Amino acid sequence: MPNVSSPRLTRAIGALSLARGGKLEGVEVAYEQYGELSPSGDNAVLICHALTGNAQAAGEGGWWDPLIGPGAAFDTDRYAVICANILGSCYGTTGPPSTNPSTGRPYGGSFPVITVGDMVAAQEQLLLQLGVRSLASVAGGSLGGLQVLEWLARRPGFVRSAVIVAANLAHEPWTIAFNECARDAIRNDPNWLGGDYAGSAKEPAQGLALARMIAMISYRSAPSFSSRFGRRVSGTAVSGQPQFAVESYLHYQGQKLVGRFDANAYVRITEAMDAYDVGEDRGGAGAALRAFKGPALVVGIDSDILYPTWQQRQIVDTLRANGNVAEYAEIATPHGHDAFLIEWAQMDQHIRGFLAELPG
Amino acid sequence: MPNVSSPRLTRAIGALSLARGGKLEGVEVAYEQYGELSPSGDNAVLICHALTGNAQAAGEGGWWDPLIGPGAAFDTDRYAVICANILGSCYGTTGPPSTNPSTGRPYGGSFPVITVGDMVAAQEQLLLQLGVRSLASVAGGSLGGLQVLEWLARRPGFVRSAVIVAANLAHEPWTIAFNECARDAIRNDPNWLGGDYAGSAKEPAQGLALARMIAMISYRSAPSFSSRFGRRVSGTAVSGQPQFAVESYLHYQGQKLVGRFDANAYVRITEAMDAYDVGEDRGGAGAALRAFKGPALVVGIDSDILYPTWQQRQIVDTLRANGNVAEYAEIATPHGHDAFLIEWAQMDQHIRGFLAELPG
Repeated sequence: MPNVSSPRLTRAIGALSLARGGKLEGVEVAYEQYGELSPSGDNAVLICHALTGNAQAAGEGGWWDPLIGPGAAFDTDRYAVICANILGSCYGTTGPPSTNPSTGRPYGGSFPVITVGDMVAAQEQLLLQLGVRSLASVAGGSLGGLQVLEWLARRPGFVRSAVIVAANLAHEPWTIAFNECARDAIRNDPNWLGGDYAGSAKEPAQGLALARMIAMISYRSAPSFSSRFGRRVSGTAVSGQPQFAVESYLHYQGQKLVGRFDANAYVRITEAMDAYDVGEDRGGAGAALRAFKGPALVVGIDSDILYPTWQQRQIVDTLRANGNVAEYAEIATPHGHDAFLIEWAQMDQHIRGFLAELPG
Repeated sequence: MPNVSSPRLTRAIGALSLARGGKLEGVEVAYEQYGELSPSGDNAVLICHALTGNAQAAGEGGWWDPLIGPGAAFDTDRYAVICANILGSCYGTTGPPSTNPSTGRPYGGSFPVITVGDMVAAQEQLLLQLGVRSLASVAGGSLGGLQVLEWLARRPGFVRSAVIVAANLAHEPWTIAFNECARDAIRNDPNWLGGDYAGSAKEPAQGLALARMIAMISYRSAPSFSSRFGRRVSGTAVSGQPQFAVESYLHYQGQKLVGRFDANAYVRITEAMDAYDVGEDRGGAGAALRAFKGPALVVGIDSDILYPTWQQRQIVDTLRANGNVAEYAEIATPHGHDAFLIEWAQMDQHIRGFLAELPG
C-alpha cells in the first residue's frame, strides 16, 4: 500500500471552555497531516481516532495507514488528511498527564470532565489555525465515529461528507457496562490514588491492564477467540491449573497498554464516550443532525458485539429521514469491533467508493 | 407453584483424593433433599448448581424452586430430589473458608486445586451414604451442566437420564476470558493477600464485586440491558458525569455477591470450570460419553452469549452419534445465560415433558 509519513506537530490553541463547566488554559493539540492543503483550504479530510488511538493515522505503524496515502482510499494527492490526538488523551494533546499551567504539575485526577463535544471543539480550533475552511470529509471508527456525529451536529456547514464506522448515536447500556467495569478496575488499583499517582513511585498499572483485558473481550468476538486460541494451553498457572493461551493473550494486551497509555486518560475518555448522545439537548438525534446536508457512508461490522449493526442502521435511518444520502455498508468478518483496524480490503473498498462519488 | 422445603443437612464423607493431586481430609457435603427416597434407592434426581449457587434448590428462595415440588417438573411425589453444595464452594460443603483439620485454620489460599470431577466425586460419596443406588436423572445449568456431563462420563451406569442446560463440552476461550478477567479483579485487590485474607481485618471485597460485575455482562444480554436500563441516569458520579442506571445495577450486583460469597471459592471454582473438558484424557467427548446409554434433554438459550446454542447442539450431536436419544430444546428469551433461572414456564415445559417420558 502507499505510504506517507508526517512529523507529529503541535499547535497551541489557547484556552478552551468545557461543556460540563470549567476551562482548560493553554491547550495544545498534537496532529499529523498527510497531503497538502489547497490554497482555498477546502480539501481537508479530518480523521478521528478511537479510545486509545493517536494522531499517527498514516505512515509506518499508523493505525489507518493502508487507507491513507497517494492513490489510497483517503488519497493524499487529492486531500490534506489531518488527524489530531483528542483532548483528554496522552499523545501530545492536552490531557491528564499534561502540566497544569496554573500549578506547574500534571493535572492527574484534577483534569476536568470532558465531552466528545470538547474533543471536537479542540479539533475545530486546530483546523481553523491550519487554514482549513471546509472539510471534504470527516471520518472515524468507534469513538472516532462519535466525533464524526458531533461534527455533523455542531458544524454542519463546515463538513461536506461523513464516514462513520462501528459507532452509534449514543452508547447502549451493555457498552457502558464494559466501560464501567474497566474504570472500576482502574479505581480499585491501590496505586490509583484518585488519579493523583503522577507524583508517586507507582502507577495503577494492574488496574489499567485489567481495564484493557476487559475491553479486549468486547473488541473481538467469541468465534475469533475460538479459532485463534481454542483451548490451547500456554503454561501452568500459579494455582496448578492450565494457563490458557487466551489468558496469556489478554495479559499481554493489558501490559502492552500499560506501556503506552495513561489511566486517567482512560477513565476520562470512556466517561465522555458513555455520556455522549448526539441528540442530547438538541431535541433528539434527528433534529441534531438536520442541518447537515451532505452524504454519509455508515459502515457496520457484522460480528461487532460492542456497536452492533442495528446501531449503524439507526444512524442511516436517522440521516435518510432528514433527506441525506446515506449509504450503509457492512464488513463481513469474524474479528468483531476491531475489524475497522483489520479488514483493510473491505474498508478500502467502501471508503474509496464513497469518496470517489463526492463532487470536487 | 408447589413449594417444598428441607433443612440444610450435612454429611461427613471422609477423605477425598483430588484429580490434580493431594487429598482433602474430613470432607463435609451440605445438601437438601425434597421428596422421599424409595426403598430400592432408585428414584433420586440429583440437581447440580451453578458457580455461586448452593444446596437450596427448592423452598422459599430456592434457585430452581418453581421446578421442584409435588406435581412440579421435578415431581417430589415421584422423585427424591437432592441438591448438594459443590466442593470448593462456601455454603456448607468443604471449601476455602472451611477449617483445615490439620491446621485448625481456614484453608484460604492453600485450598487445593479442584476439578469438576472432584465435585462429582464428592456428590457420589454423599449419594452412596444416603442409600441412592441409581439416579433417575441428573440435571443442571451452566456449571451444573458441566457436572451432569461429568456424571455421564464418570458413572454412566449410575445415571438413567440427563438434563443439561446452557452448558458445553468444554469452555471456549471467550468464556475463559470473562473468567480470567474476574479472577484478575480479585487477585488485583490489595486485600487478596494470595488468598490468605481470612486472618486479616479485610476481605478482597472490591475485587470480588468487580468479578461479579464483569460476569453480569456475560450472564445477561445487550438487548436485555437496553430494554431494562436504556440510558436512564440514576445520579451523578464523583467525576460529575452522569451515573447510568446500568452502572448502579452492576455495583449493586457486585456488592450483593460480596455479602454472600467467598473470593477464594470464586477463583477455585471458575478455574475448575475453565479447565473442564469432558473429553480430556478420555479420547474426546464422544468416547467419554459412550458408555452412557440413557436419554438426554439438552436445553439452549437463544440469547446466551456465554454458552451459545451451537455448544448445546454440539452436545446433542455427540450424544446422538453415540446412539443416545438426545432432545434439543431452546428457550426463547432476551435475558441471556441467566434465563435458566428466570424463564420458568419454558424450563418447566421442557423438563416436565422430558421426565414424563422416562420409564418407571
